[in-house]
Amino acid sequence: MPASRFTPLIAALPATVPFVAAEAMERARGAPFRARIGANESVFGPSPKAVAAMRAAADDVWLYGDPEVFELKAAIAAAHGVTPDHVVVGEGIDALLGQTVRLFVEAGTPVVTSQGGYPTFDYHVAGHGGSFVRVPYVDDREDLDGLIAAADRSGAPLAYFANPDNPMATWWEAAAVEAAVARLPAGTLLILDEAYGEFAPAGVLPRIDPDDPRVLRFRTFSKAHGMAGLRVAYGIGAPEVTRAFDKIRNHFGIGRIAQAGALAALGDGVWLAEVIAAVNRSKARIAAIAAANGLTSLPSATNFVAVDCGRDGAFARAVLDGLIARDLFVRKPGLAPMDRCIRISAGTDADLHLLAAALPLALADAAAAVVPA
Amino acid sequence: MPASRFTPLIAALPATVPFVAAEAMERARGAPFRARIGANESVFGPSPKAVAAMRAAADDVWLYGDPEVFELKAAIAAAHGVTPDHVVVGEGIDALLGQTVRLFVEAGTPVVTSQGGYPTFDYHVAGHGGSFVRVPYVDDREDLDGLIAAADRSGAPLAYFANPDNPMATWWEAAAVEAAVARLPAGTLLILDEAYGEFAPAGVLPRIDPDDPRVLRFRTFSKAHGMAGLRVAYGIGAPEVTRAFDKIRNHFGIGRIAQAGALAALGDGVWLAEVIAAVNRSKARIAAIAAANGLTSLPSATNFVAVDCGRDGAFARAVLDGLIARDLFVRKPGLAPMDRCIRISAGTDADLHLLAAALPLALADAAAAVVPA
Repeated sequence: MPASRFTPLIAALPATVPFVAAEAMERARGAPFRARIGANESVFGPSPKAVAAMRAAADDVWLYGDPEVFELKAAIAAAHGVTPDHVVVGEGIDALLGQTVRLFVEAGTPVVTSQGGYPTFDYHVAGHGGSFVRVPYVDDREDLDGLIAAADRSGAPLAYFANPDNPMATWWEAAAVEAAVARLPAGTLLILDEAYGEFAPAGVLPRIDPDDPRVLRFRTFSKAHGMAGLRVAYGIGAPEVTRAFDKIRNHFGIGRIAQAGALAALGDGVWLAEVIAAVNRSKARIAAIAAANGLTSLPSATNFVAVDCGRDGAFARAVLDGLIARDLFVRKPGLAPMDRCIRISAGTDADLHLLAAALPLALADAAAAVVPA
Repeated sequence: MPASRFTPLIAALPATVPFVAAEAMERARGAPFRARIGANESVFGPSPKAVAAMRAAADDVWLYGDPEVFELKAAIAAAHGVTPDHVVVGEGIDALLGQTVRLFVEAGTPVVTSQGGYPTFDYHVAGHGGSFVRVPYVDDREDLDGLIAAADRSGAPLAYFANPDNPMATWWEAAAVEAAVARLPAGTLLILDEAYGEFAPAGVLPRIDPDDPRVLRFRTFSKAHGMAGLRVAYGIGAPEVTRAFDKIRNHFGIGRIAQAGALAALGDGVWLAEVIAAVNRSKARIAAIAAANGLTSLPSATNFVAVDCGRDGAFARAVLDGLIARDLFVRKPGLAPMDRCIRISAGTDADLHLLAAALPLALADAAAAVVPA
């Protein structure tokens, strides 16, 4: 039979998977994980009010969700002191990234991002034929000034910056971000990915003029709100930018249960505060476990900790493999020198009990297996 | 401030909305509808087993859904006698349509569809700069032979055909579809949209070789399964086609609750049979109400009925407005001559009681308002 006539761009694309999922690993291993602290999901779960709202909405799921996402957009706007016209809601930040790339990128368009930054952004840029302008991390942080300079130099219409950062959990202070935004070229849209924004300490989240068409900031219900499996996130930006999503988005893509759950979660600040406190306790415990094993942890403004395994990427990979072999789902950065770290999401007490037991064994295995150069 | 640097294609696109939602109309009216029988949603709701599964999954929604959608794909494959490699799962047929268009269409690519066919397909084709090759309906049916001939003539890599059809509820028998597929040009992928396939009488759903790269058939959990607000649909096609979605899809887009609900619904054939029986009773009642008002109904292979208002589009629009003014959410085709009809979704007894009361009044209003040419 004949070959399908995909577009040349599609025909040339690899069928990559941005992340190998815990479930795929479990199927390959033939055994479930005992601790799932590898995907920065919130083990503390969603707000009970959100759970109740989602359960109630299950009865109404025969109805399409409101394609204008009216109530949720209004609530998001109120929470951020902007108008609903400044808000776009999408099926997770991943979907919003894909749509944003589609708005600004065609074959050959330069796009600025960090080398070793969020793989799903790269996936979407490649998927639209964009040309990468990659800026290396400096001292385990995205190089904010370097990103701005690269945008200026390349004339890129789109640049990506995560603050706080994934996979390193590092951050820039608000003042630095605000100064960088002030220097943004007129023709560049900066995606400010604040997926972990709720976990950031005071003084990290910048003030951005919501009418500035050069910045689009993203927040999600997947992390602090504990609803990664619901697929709701939002962008805040100038109406000329948010309106453009109506040209290409999947208008009925935010379903009935998703809108109900997100709306309830947004209204439960008490739960959010409890989760953030629990995450902070968990991160301190991860750092203590690392320290007890002679390892240092990077300061974290997110819901995970990058633990420096103290040697090179091969050694950290061996440590990671040792944890996985002991039924802990954990991930790590892929690019040197960040790849000397493993990335451990905040876990329950039970999760971290398993981590405390497994880490010394994984380290011993790794030390035996990996001969120093 | 400077204008955003959208791609030329995006800059030229209108911010269209494929459908104005019931909620938007309610906000504009300042009053809720009493019957929602305009979007072909299933008023009979989802399987109670699916509701139970979705409720249970709400607790686990802190976890990402399996990006490989392993269990659901396996169940779909088993139900259709194909392998999981023949299956692609997406966030509703709308999302799958968008992804399929992206796989095959770039600026100027000819795309074949029916004039007055599914607006969201047109939305995605326009969104990727495709060039429309439109084939008029014939006798209220999509012109199956005309679509194949247009694909042959234009060299289009992509053609769209809904069977049973929306908005007319008409259909082609399996033998005719199979004969048309046999004549498909080698380089054309036919999207066979079977969103309403479960409602089709025996002898309508064709046998298609699942390894034929020229056909991709779509099914959804939005209609017969009663979960429009969940956003799950699937395609069945040759692995060379289904695999290509992995190059561009939102890998984590099918959430935890969505996968659980769809899996449970697929396993509840008893509920599905009950819904189909209830839909058939409801359609007979709609036809009886129409007949009592001197109107004819088109035979329907879907969960809705196209009621011929007997005059032109302006008259049918006036009838529709009269129903909306009496708090019934109903829609109608937009293009002549199909626009002489209004489209009424299967409703509950209460919904159709309202319809029976409102239709004569709406007809009288329309007759008074619209002077025959």
